[in-house]
Amino acid sequence: MDYILKDENAIYYECGFSCDNAIFIAVGGESFFITDARYTTEAKEHVKGAEVVEARDLVAQARRILRRLRVPKIAYDPKEFDCKSLTGLRKGVTTQFHPSPDLSWKRRAIKSPEEIELIRRSAQLNREAFHRFGEYLVQEGEGKSERELRFAAQEFLTRRGLYDLSFEPIVALNGNAAKPHAHPSSLKLSRGDLILFDGGIRYERYCSDRTRTALFGEGFHWGKDQSFSDPLIQRAYDVVRRAQEAAIEGARSGMEAREIDALARDIVERSEFRGRFVHSLGHGVGLDIHEMPFINSRNRQIIEDGMVFTIEPGIYIPGAFGIRIEDMVYMDSGRAELLP
Amino acid sequence: MDYILKDENAIYYECGFSCDNAIFIAVGGESFFITDARYTTEAKEHVKGAEVVEARDLVAQARRILRRLRVPKIAYDPKEFDCKSLTGLRKGVTTQFHPSPDLSWKRRAIKSPEEIELIRRSAQLNREAFHRFGEYLVQEGEGKSERELRFAAQEFLTRRGLYDLSFEPIVALNGNAAKPHAHPSSLKLSRGDLILFDGGIRYERYCSDRTRTALFGEGFHWGKDQSFSDPLIQRAYDVVRRAQEAAIEGARSGMEAREIDALARDIVERSEFRGRFVHSLGHGVGLDIHEMPFINSRNRQIIEDGMVFTIEPGIYIPGAFGIRIEDMVYMDSGRAELLP
Repeated sequence: MDYILKDENAIYYECGFSCDNAIFIAVGGESFFITDARYTTEAKEHVKGAEVVEARDLVAQARRILRRLRVPKIAYDPKEFDCKSLTGLRKGVTTQFHPSPDLSWKRRAIKSPEEIELIRRSAQLNREAFHRFGEYLVQEGEGKSERELRFAAQEFLTRRGLYDLSFEPIVALNGNAAKPHAHPSSLKLSRGDLILFDGGIRYERYCSDRTRTALFGEGFHWGKDQSFSDPLIQRAYDVVRRAQEAAIEGARSGMEAREIDALARDIVERSEFRGRFVHSLGHGVGLDIHEMPFINSRNRQIIEDGMVFTIEPGIYIPGAFGIRIEDMVYMDSGRAELLP
Repeated sequence: MDYILKDENAIYYECGFSCDNAIFIAVGGESFFITDARYTTEAKEHVKGAEVVEARDLVAQARRILRRLRVPKIAYDPKEFDCKSLTGLRKGVTTQFHPSPDLSWKRRAIKSPEEIELIRRSAQLNREAFHRFGEYLVQEGEGKSERELRFAAQEFLTRRGLYDLSFEPIVALNGNAAKPHAHPSSLKLSRGDLILFDGGIRYERYCSDRTRTALFGEGFHWGKDQSFSDPLIQRAYDVVRRAQEAAIEGARSGMEAREIDALARDIVERSEFRGRFVHSLGHGVGLDIHEMPFINSRNRQIIEDGMVFTIEPGIYIPGAFGIRIEDMVYMDSGRAELLP
């Protein structure tokens, strides 16, 4: 069916260019990229396979195209269009607007080999940034606040501006790591602290995402073999690690997403940390940092070869500590392969 | 009337805390901050004047509250709620949902003296960052790419992570400055280049925004007195500067926003650069970097004391150069006062 898009990444996927004020229409083999005067110079240079149309009022221009081409019915994602633009689009046109939830995400859920290579490169650059940030922590990290550490992390992740972030990195110490989406504070890094680092970049717009939890001090590293002095923390860490390994090893194409979630969740639920794994196991990664497939305890979507997602179990004890280990995988020949 | 909010800044304004997954309901003197388990620890520490309610499904929880309190009618901003959440909210409740465009922006358009002080401080810190970035350009800027310069700009704007950005800063050279929202490229800074810098930070969540255009070379500075070697660029610069001064000096409380826009636009339209001022004159600034009042050629909103907005005329010659000068003002005793 013909469709209309508004989201920046949804549009980029269709024509190789995007900006923060555009509407994309694909109707009967023709495609239109509607944007305002601020962006037409760049759009004309980069948009592939669609006509660039300059307009002051994008919604009115979209209506004109729908009327001119007598489009009977068009699909849209209700999450992508706010009620105001949708009302505007419908005004005075006979086109029927057909809600199609996750329209673009569904088109993008199975990655092409070229996309997998871009994501692999993104994850590889991300892994290198973790390594360099780790070296920095050893040399200069002690006494730096979470805010300063987060800025330093950005410096390594982006190579001082060469790459964009896929999200604001999280650097959280001890009790702050118990908030899965912690804001950085003025708390300072000391030897013996638990440090959680969750970061990712974009390479050619494709995202990466990775988390490690480690003990800061003698012999610090981001590897998965970690020794914490607190036995409770060590037990939680070992449970998270086992849960992650079980999901990576057990995931198969053809499973429902919730079955993959259960591979990890069952291990936490059968441990002394029952109820402490408060978020889903993972999420798809591509042009969006969070996209299909969503790996949680309710999603019955079938996992297929070519899908890319994170596996990131966690255990959180409010006020005390948080543990999360996250890697990206892609489904290949029925199994989950680590990225990079 | 009772109201329901979803936007992060809209919610922060009501209760002094927010996060990226929350619904706020104000009904009959009672207020509720609904969020998921990831955020309740922080929410309980910081939310003022509202009850924190933890929920897995926020929309279902909101419905439960509306049913329990038998709310007959509630206002919402159609731009804030996508069609999917709104349909979910309405399911099985008798509450009537009343669309109230720009609900939160209207509440926030006139700033309190305390808010003005936070914005002034934000603008002051921003001005200092421009100064330091200027010193860096003199000492180390030559030969750096737009991408590297943008990262350095972020370093000065955020004080290496102490403050958040209010938007990704723009650093654009020569022809790239002709794209009002340019993406940074690998183009390198040389003596004799035109450099446009548009940056802003957040201080206690309140935004600042400032733009300068300058000639890079001997005697470089971000001041408004600039001498370009190209006479066409100089003429364009002088027109933009005159347009900005006319708007700052001529703006009065009681005017319609479009009358303030016209103070600047008329000067560009009567010059040889007619048609080259392709965007609006300015926008409100507060918790959002773009909020009410919008200063453009169509908006009839009455400007009042206590409003804060940018005045940023520009002239853009595609492929050649772009000029923009931007300051923030607040309306006080009927006139526009510069911030900081």
